[in-house]
Formats: sequence, structure tokens, C-alpha cells
Amino acid sequence: MFEIGIVQRTRTTPFYESIVKAGVKGFTVYNHMLLPTYFESAEADYWYLINGVSMWDVSCERQVEITGPDAFKLVTMMTPRNISKCKVGQGKYVPIVDHNGGMINDPILLKLAEDHYWLSIADTDVALWAKGLALGMGLDVKIGEPDVSPLAVQGPDADRVCADLLGDWIYDLKYFWFREYDLDGIPLVVQRSGWSKQGGLELYLRDGSKGNELWDKVAEAGKPYNIKPGSPSTIERIEHGLFSQGNDMTIENNPFEIGLGKYCAVDQEADFIGKAALQRIKAEGVTQKLVGVVLPDVTIKGISRWAPLTSSDGQAAGKITSLTYSPRLKKTIAFGMVPIEYTEIGTELIAHTDQGETAAVVHETPFIK
Amino acid sequence: MFEIGIVQRTRTTPFYESIVKAGVKGFTVYNHMLLPTYFESAEADYWYLINGVSMWDVSCERQVEITGPDAFKLVTMMTPRNISKCKVGQGKYVPIVDHNGGMINDPILLKLAEDHYWLSIADTDVALWAKGLALGMGLDVKIGEPDVSPLAVQGPDADRVCADLLGDWIYDLKYFWFREYDLDGIPLVVQRSGWSKQGGLELYLRDGSKGNELWDKVAEAGKPYNIKPGSPSTIERIEHGLFSQGNDMTIENNPFEIGLGKYCAVDQEADFIGKAALQRIKAEGVTQKLVGVVLPDVTIKGISRWAPLTSSDGQAAGKITSLTYSPRLKKTIAFGMVPIEYTEIGTELIAHTDQGETAAVVHETPFIK
Repeated sequence: MFEIGIVQRTRTTPFYESIVKAGVKGFTVYNHMLLPTYFESAEADYWYLINGVSMWDVSCERQVEITGPDAFKLVTMMTPRNISKCKVGQGKYVPIVDHNGGMINDPILLKLAEDHYWLSIADTDVALWAKGLALGMGLDVKIGEPDVSPLAVQGPDADRVCADLLGDWIYDLKYFWFREYDLDGIPLVVQRSGWSKQGGLELYLRDGSKGNELWDKVAEAGKPYNIKPGSPSTIERIEHGLFSQGNDMTIENNPFEIGLGKYCAVDQEADFIGKAALQRIKAEGVTQKLVGVVLPDVTIKGISRWAPLTSSDGQAAGKITSLTYSPRLKKTIAFGMVPIEYTEIGTELIAHTDQGETAAVVHETPFIK
Repeated sequence: MFEIGIVQRTRTTPFYESIVKAGVKGFTVYNHMLLPTYFESAEADYWYLINGVSMWDVSCERQVEITGPDAFKLVTMMTPRNISKCKVGQGKYVPIVDHNGGMINDPILLKLAEDHYWLSIADTDVALWAKGLALGMGLDVKIGEPDVSPLAVQGPDADRVCADLLGDWIYDLKYFWFREYDLDGIPLVVQRSGWSKQGGLELYLRDGSKGNELWDKVAEAGKPYNIKPGSPSTIERIEHGLFSQGNDMTIENNPFEIGLGKYCAVDQEADFIGKAALQRIKAEGVTQKLVGVVLPDVTIKGISRWAPLTSSDGQAAGKITSLTYSPRLKKTIAFGMVPIEYTEIGTELIAHTDQGETAAVVHETPFIK
């Protein structure tokens, strides 16, 4: 167990006092900002999410704000997804790729107005990518990081907590759609979203000075439902097939390798960065793919870095990218980036973790539907 | 004290086994990679650096590699510094700014060949900025992150350790100049550099599989000098006026505000990004400046985030950006980003830290020459 050093560079969040009071025990750094990793324990936090409701400080899901006359043009250039029909008030999951089709990030796009967008990003500096492109292409846009910090309410009881706090209109929000809302002077964007498959919302706080006030209101509204502090759960995300930039894919991977082909409208009319590369990859097929992997050895409950895979005859067969023990399945489950010839369900491989060698069997995902 | 969660996204380094064995106790995340924060204690580590020699895993100083016919053109565009006379084998400190003159990063440029550059970066994704620019401007370059991980040897005895290991030629290296070197099959770039003012070199390891081998060789060569494991010292860097991207400056600051005006050749012939903005800022003068601050209250030994400053009559007067207790000066010293009217040496301000309110007096930097 190692201590984390905290300075301004690894920015504390608007909810910091609240999460410390709530007993946060660990952090990681994500978009140059602290992200809690656990409160009670990874498994206890997980069960609260699965069985009830938990609230997460996900301020680190920073927004890249793009405004101006060419904002739509830039956003269209930045993703292979066809966003021509995206409406104001709607969000969309949009892979962001470079000219080789390599994954830079996989944010949620929020369309606040025809000339006003947020990209709610994973852990890379998308703002620098967007600014470089805009400057190089001479586009008339402004790009910045606004004072916006999401607080997620997730779990089967999340909607009830949010309805009690915000009103029954939240039940009408369709997935990734959002609405601006003023909660007793706390400015919010409320979106049906969240980095779990347990349901719920994200409350995008638009005034960092009111973080602890918002935290207290959500905690109060959640009391009847026994709400708990938590954070994105590695266990739950792997069970449900949610993958993570930097873990399961990097700029070396294209969207087709990680099952995002359906978001790549390579034949759309609009031009976008990586179009030629993705057209070629789609036509030729991929050489590797992200798959599920089950490890019969349940003593291995986590990895701190990629673990190489080999085939039964000793050939290199990719790597495990994320791994967890699943308390619901009572199995150790993982994702693996595996050469296409080893991707068939049931293929037996060997994982080389820092806790030793062990069998690894290719499995379908999600592990839990 | 909070625990750090470690996964692939916060990459372990090629020296990871060695630093764990050497007793690393804390980490931060820097360029999506682990950076040790301390081994024995921040102060004990500091004294080893000041009085002898220490070795640092600074793999997180990632290299942005730019190659190709337009490489020089791109690098020239990326910095206000005039690099037209930079020679192969030479390094230069080059601020990187956006079109507003805002600080994106402050790397060391290494010129490996006329069409081959590394930017040894601080903690932002300069590769995305460079790729966006290159793509937008249609430049013929390749940009990537090579397998290069620096190991720093720093302190008054650092040169002797390196000479024993590598040869007396290291004494001939001028500041920021470098040489490629093969150490018994370990490919290195050896540069007179390092994030301290105690002297020494950085050994840029060019084969991540040989990290622990290199660590052992340096540790062995350092034995007669009682070499210790360490990491960039917040104490030493503040004493000597070294500032840090993300702490002391962000994209909201221009180079003139942080004393980097001398690196801004705003009248050079070559065009560069931010030229018009920096010409205007130079002509008009800055509205705020990074200054030294001394806090007579020595019970405050560190801050985890910016601490607001006010003037004696209660006006907002900027913020403290970094702070430490200096064991050599027996004072608490800091940097502050302060409105120009409060920058005169001796100006008395009030610092509002999370450990309470305290006097703060503007002081010249560096605190120790």
C-alpha cells in the first residue's frame, strides 16, 4: 500500500471536504484531478451500488467546452460517430480518434446549444487535441475547461433519490439526455448517465463553490434509501463490460478492436479525422480484439498493470488489460486484448501476472447482462 | 493519509520492481505514470540530495518524439524560444504556449538529428497538442511516445557516480547537452540535466525491459558515495526557485508572469504559436507575477491546493501556488501568483490555508542561490 501525494497539480475537487468527512480512503488521479477509489472497501462499496444507491465525486470527468460559429464543425471532425442529428439537450457517446483511427478518448458529448458543446472526457487532455486541431485548421471556436464537476448518483434506488431531490421529471429523461436545473441556487445540468450499469443520473455542478452544499443535499435526500459514498467500481464495470481508456484501450487501439465499430459511421457524408484509416480497418478487419477472460484461479483479485497472455503452445497471445474478482459470479474475470486467432469463446490461454502464472479462458462479455 | 490505487492507466515504470524493493512509500501520477514522492521521508530524502547523491525514477518525464521532414518546422511553431541555432546533441528549455500565450508545458527539447526531436515534458499531453497542430496544418511529421524512461542521478556527488559508471567524458557535457551511450547493452541518452539545482545527469533509458538492470548498475556505482533512492524534492525545488506546471502555472498563465520572458523571442523572424499575444503582453506588461513568499508561521509545512492571499486591507491578492518548510533556511517558503501591485519585496499579505490564516511576506527568488 502506497500513499498518494496531493498538490494543486492533482487538483482536489469541489466535494473534497465532504468526501474526506465521508471517509474516503484512497484516490487515483484522473484528468489531473483526484478521483476517490474507495470508502469502506472496494467490495463493500460495490454491494451498496448493486443493492441500493451510492453517490460519487466524479469531478474528474472534466468538460471540454467548445463554443463558437465553428463548434459543430469541429465536433463533427473529432468523432467517427454521425452526430448530425444530435439535438440540443441530447448526449451521445462519441469515440475520439486520431488520423490513424487510434483511440484518444471516449467521452459523452453534450449538446447545450447549436454552437455550444461539452465533451465529458476520460483521462487524456482532449482540450489540447481540440485546440491544436482548431488552430491548425483555422476554425472560429473557443475551447476551455468550464467550472463543471459531475456528482453521480448510481444504483437501483438512484432515480428515487433524485426524484425526491429534483422532481419526478427526472424519470422522463432518456439515456444521455439532460436538462438544466436550478436547485435552490445551485446551478446543475442533470443527465441520465453514469459509469455503471445500475442506473441513475449525473448532476453536473456548474459552480464549484457549492460542491459541499450539493453533496449535503444529495446525502440528505438519500438518507431514506441508505445512500453511501462510493466511486466508479472496477468490479461492476468489468462484470458489465464497461472498458476504460488507458487500461483497456490506448491510442494504439482502434474502435473496431474494442467493439465500438457500431459508432463508426465510416461512410457518412461528413469528413472526420481518421475516416480513411477506419474505412480501411473496417474493410480489412482487425488483427486483435478486446475479449472477456475468466481465470479459474480466484486468488488473483486485481492487477496493477497489463499481464501478458500466451497460448497453450507458448505463443504470445496479447495481454490482460483489467481484472477483478466478481463477488456475484464468484469468479475472477478480466478483459484481454487478444490476437484475432485466439478470440474464440473457450480458447484456453495462460496469464502471466505478477502473482504468478494461471489459466485464462476466453469468455463472452458482458459477464453480467 | 490516503492510499493510491494503481492500474495500467497510471502506468508503472521500468524501474518499478527496483523502487519497491528500495522502499518507496508514496506516489503521485504524472503524465499518466507513477512518480515516487518519497522513500525515507521528504526531509530525509532531501538531505541525501543536498549532501550526497540520490537516484530518481523520473520515467514520467515522457518524451514526445517528433520526426520527419517537417519536424523542425513544427517544433519551431510550438515554442516562443528561438531554436534556430540549436545543434544536434543539444537540449534547450522551451516553453510551449497556446495562441493566447498560455502555458501548456515547459519541456526540455532534445535535438537528436535535424529531423528528430524529443520534448521531455511536464504533466500535460503535449503529444495531443502537437498531433492536433500537425494534422490541422498538414505537416509531414510523425509524433509518438517512444520507449524512453529517464533515471536521474542528482546531488553534489552525482557526477562522480556517473563518471565511475559511464566514463570521465560525462564531465565534458555542457548543461542540457547529451550523448548517446551503450552501457553493456543498455541503450542510453545521457544528458546533463535534472530537476534540481544540485547538479547531475539524467540517463534516458531507451529499452524499458532493462530498467531494473540499469537501476542496479547505478546503485552499485553509487555505493561508495552512499547513494540513496529519492525523487524530485518539493523542498529543494522551492528553495531554488524551480516552478512546476499545474502548481505554479497553468494554461491561464503566460511566460512573462512566471519569469520566462527571456525565453520568448517575440521579435524573431520565425512564426510561432502565440506570437501576436506574447508581443502584446510584452508591450503592455503583465497584470500578475509569480513571486517568492515567506510565512513566519513555520507550523505550516505544505499545502494540498492553492491558498488564497489577501492584502492587509482585505483585497484579493492572488494565491500561494506551492509551499514548503525549508530545513536549511528554517523558514516556511512559498511561491505566490500575485497581482502586480502586491509584488514588491517586503509586501505584507495574509495567506488563507486550510490550516488557518497566517502572515505572508513577498520575498525574492530563488530563496537559495
